[in-house]
This record gives sequence, C-alpha cells and structure tokens, in this order.
Amino acid sequence: MKSYEELVKYYRELTHFDSSKDSDYPSHQQQRLPQPPLSKAKMTDKQIALPMDFKSLELTNDTVNLIYSRESRRSYSGESLTLLQLSFLLWATQGVKSMRGNNYATMRTVPCGGARHPFETYLVVQNVEGLDKGVYHYLPLTNEIEFLKPVEDMEQVIADSVVGQKWASNASVVFYWSIMPYRAEWRYGEAAVLRSLVDVGHVCQNLYLACEAAKLGTCAIISFDFELCNKLFGLDGEDEYVIYCAPVGTVSPVDNSDEIYAFVKNEPGAQG
Amino acid sequence: MKSYEELVKYYRELTHFDSSKDSDYPSHQQQRLPQPPLSKAKMTDKQIALPMDFKSLELTNDTVNLIYSRESRRSYSGESLTLLQLSFLLWATQGVKSMRGNNYATMRTVPCGGARHPFETYLVVQNVEGLDKGVYHYLPLTNEIEFLKPVEDMEQVIADSVVGQKWASNASVVFYWSIMPYRAEWRYGEAAVLRSLVDVGHVCQNLYLACEAAKLGTCAIISFDFELCNKLFGLDGEDEYVIYCAPVGTVSPVDNSDEIYAFVKNEPGAQG
Repeated sequence: MKSYEELVKYYRELTHFDSSKDSDYPSHQQQRLPQPPLSKAKMTDKQIALPMDFKSLELTNDTVNLIYSRESRRSYSGESLTLLQLSFLLWATQGVKSMRGNNYATMRTVPCGGARHPFETYLVVQNVEGLDKGVYHYLPLTNEIEFLKPVEDMEQVIADSVVGQKWASNASVVFYWSIMPYRAEWRYGEAAVLRSLVDVGHVCQNLYLACEAAKLGTCAIISFDFELCNKLFGLDGEDEYVIYCAPVGTVSPVDNSDEIYAFVKNEPGAQG
Repeated sequence: MKSYEELVKYYRELTHFDSSKDSDYPSHQQQRLPQPPLSKAKMTDKQIALPMDFKSLELTNDTVNLIYSRESRRSYSGESLTLLQLSFLLWATQGVKSMRGNNYATMRTVPCGGARHPFETYLVVQNVEGLDKGVYHYLPLTNEIEFLKPVEDMEQVIADSVVGQKWASNASVVFYWSIMPYRAEWRYGEAAVLRSLVDVGHVCQNLYLACEAAKLGTCAIISFDFELCNKLFGLDGEDEYVIYCAPVGTVSPVDNSDEIYAFVKNEPGAQG
C-alpha cells in the first residue's frame, strides 16, 4: 500500500499539465482514423422540441449582480420549471451555436479544448411544466430532449444518486453530465479525460449563472454513486459515464441555507 | 511500457468520481490538523489597491447575448485595459464575497468543492493603464495586486510560456492560475487535486463571460511550459504550480479568427 505522501505526489503529478509530457502514441486523429460523432445519436423515437424564444424569459440582465449574487443553493421550493426555462439551461450549458468545417466540430455556448465537447446531458425531471416525470436525454444538435424512461420512487433515487444528500431530492430537475471520453481522446490521446475535467467546469459555471439569471438555484455535486448514476441512464461506465451533476430548483423564499450548510460541511464533494 | 489501451483505461478510471472509492487515510481535517491559509500571503511590500466601482464600467448587460456571443478570441488589438477592467476580471474569477465561520472558508464569485478555493492568480501585465509592465500576484482578501518583478522580452516570454502560441503575446494581460493543492487535500485527501480541475473550469468560465461583458477577448490554454510558468512566478512545482492560463486582450475590429483557427486547429490544448 502506498503511503499518504506517495499518493499525494502521485495525484499532484497527474495535474501537471506539462506540454512536454506528450503521449508516446500518435493520436487517432494523427493516424487519420475516423472522427467519432459530435454528439450521441438519438436513443429513442420520441423527441420533444425545445422552445427557444429566450427573449420572453424573465431574466436578470445585470452582469455584475449576476456574478455577485450567484451562490450554491441547496434549498428549493419545489415549484415547476417552465419548459422554456429548462430549454434555456440546456442551451446555456451545451447549446450548439454553429458548426466548423465538414462536421469537424460544434461551437457551443461553452469553451472546450479543441472544441471536442465530449459531454452528454441527462436529466431526471421531477417538476417541469408539460413533461412527464422521468429520465431525459438532451439532443443539442436539434434542440430537443427525448424521454428515456419513468423512474419509480424518484425522490429516493435522486437522493441515492448523490449518496444521501437529501436536499437534492427537492429539485425540480437534476442535471447529470456524462463524458464519452473517446471524443476527446481521438484528438488528444489517452490523457485527454483529465483535461476534460476542466471543460466540464466551464459547463457547470454556465448552469450556475443561467440559473441565477432565471431566479433558479443550483449546487453542483461531484460525489455521487457511480454505478447507480450510470445504470439510471444506461451507460456502460467505460465508454460513457457520469462525471458531474447538479440539482436545479425554484428558490425558496425562506432561505435556510445556513442550516443546510452546517449539514453539508460534513458532506465531501458538495460545492461551497 | 503500457499499451495505448491500458493507458486509456488507466486515465478514464482516474475520472470515475465514485464516492465509494474514498481514501484509505483520514483527511487532515478529520485528524484536526490546522487548516492552511485561505489565500497565499502577500509576497512583497508593494500592494496596489484595485478600484471596485464596477458600476462605472461599460458592460454588456444582456444575459442571453452574453452567453451567445462569448467565444474563444485569439485576436487582440493591443490596446490598454483600464485598471478597473482588470479589477473586474480578477473579482469575477476569484473575488471574495464573504467569509464563513472563524476564517473557515471564503465565499467567492465562483463555486468550489467545499469552498476550498485552492487557486492563486498571477498576471503578466503588458498593457494596463497605470501599471508597470511585469508580473503581478492577486490578493483576493484585500482587493489588491502586488508587483513581483519586471519581465524582459515579454512578448517572447508569453509565447514561450504557452509553447509557442504567438497570438498570446498580443494580449494586454495574461492570467495564470496556480493551484496550492494542500488547501483542497487538507479537507478531501490525496485525490482532491483531480476534482479541483473541475473547479478551475468554473473560474475560467467566469473570465470568459466577464471579458465578453467588458468587450474584451480571451482564450484559455491548458498546454503550457510547466517549468517556465512556475519559474516565472517563483513556484516550486510541488506545493504550488500553474494549472491553467488565459491571455486577455482588447478585441480587434478586424476579426481574423478563422485564419487563426486554421492554425490553432493543429495546436493541442487550445480551446474551441
């Protein structure tokens, strides 16, 4: 067994993004192997078009206040999100603005190394106007979502998925981001997934700000039940697996975040 | 030597954030060892107060347009930033809004796991009104920067620091974020640094949006010269080292980003 000091050294060195430590292997792009799809194909035959008239949303449009007022919110009032609000959050985090080349890359609302965008977005919808409760998958190329399946005992499933953080089960919708590593590895080789972690942070920060603008609340969670989350969306845990998640809800007029914080302080992986 | 397939499996598993794979060691927080400082101490005796009257900035205050128009900008016109603009970018990325407990944690303009905020911000200032050219360090607890040293042949140093991406040397200021891993390890143990990668993505996305709002441009870079960057700021490469950087400049009225993109496409680690 490695000592704690050895482990510290080992993990730190993994985050030394030294350009001189390039792979010994040429990337699949360099080998001119075919590029993987820019986005996961539809998983069902039932797509739901997302409304895109964001101008009709009631948003905070004051950039300084938006940045200042954003905080990790774990207290939700349990009201419905509108489909337009949900659409805005999906677009703000992974929306496709344009294409580069002949299907070479998607330009999205967030930056990503080499424009690889190796992420997929899954939702557990609990309370969104016009949507059945259940699991959904976002299709960014067509601005649609698709219904995957219902979920029994949803509040419990949500809490279990984030290892018992019960506050999450009051969310109206929970975002779960998966990574399909090969989309990034194809271009950057085996260590690409480490750099993708930074990219999923870009995504999540846009969720925070989009929520804040729409008077919704979120709090990202990086400690979750890996097996349960992957099973929930039918992911194999190798070529695609969940890496980050964030419950989203309407914000409670009673702010008991101090109490909740006292609890959460002892929960590893919750965001401050 | 490991095969490519073995390496792919190895790196992917590092990004399996499975809460069940907790450390075999109790964290230093659990051992009740003293908490490290929330921010690095002043490195010099020469601090410069940052102006904070952001209301006098000319900012885009339209959230949808802000998110939509943000893109990775590598073409800079080389004009000066004002000190107020720079102050806004520093505040938006690492500004301290409040404290929790008895110096237990800083609440900042970005979320971070357990509110650990293990990052420091260094600047190479090339063209900011009222500032001498050189290397600076941000002091978020007091809204100050401090001058560390001048830099000879600055354009070359900037380009070398990002392994020859010459467009970066037209920036008015370059942000370099370091990590002091122990700030996160103290609470979360040896693997904390991997999760911190997500957190630095939060930081950088706020830089993108703050730049966009202030009509400035940026493009984050994760491939850099590890030794050179650490030497530039006097970091030991173990207890503190650079993990991400982002040149910032005034935006050129002539948009030649397509040409630049054609070049950058072949540069590993540049953002799309």
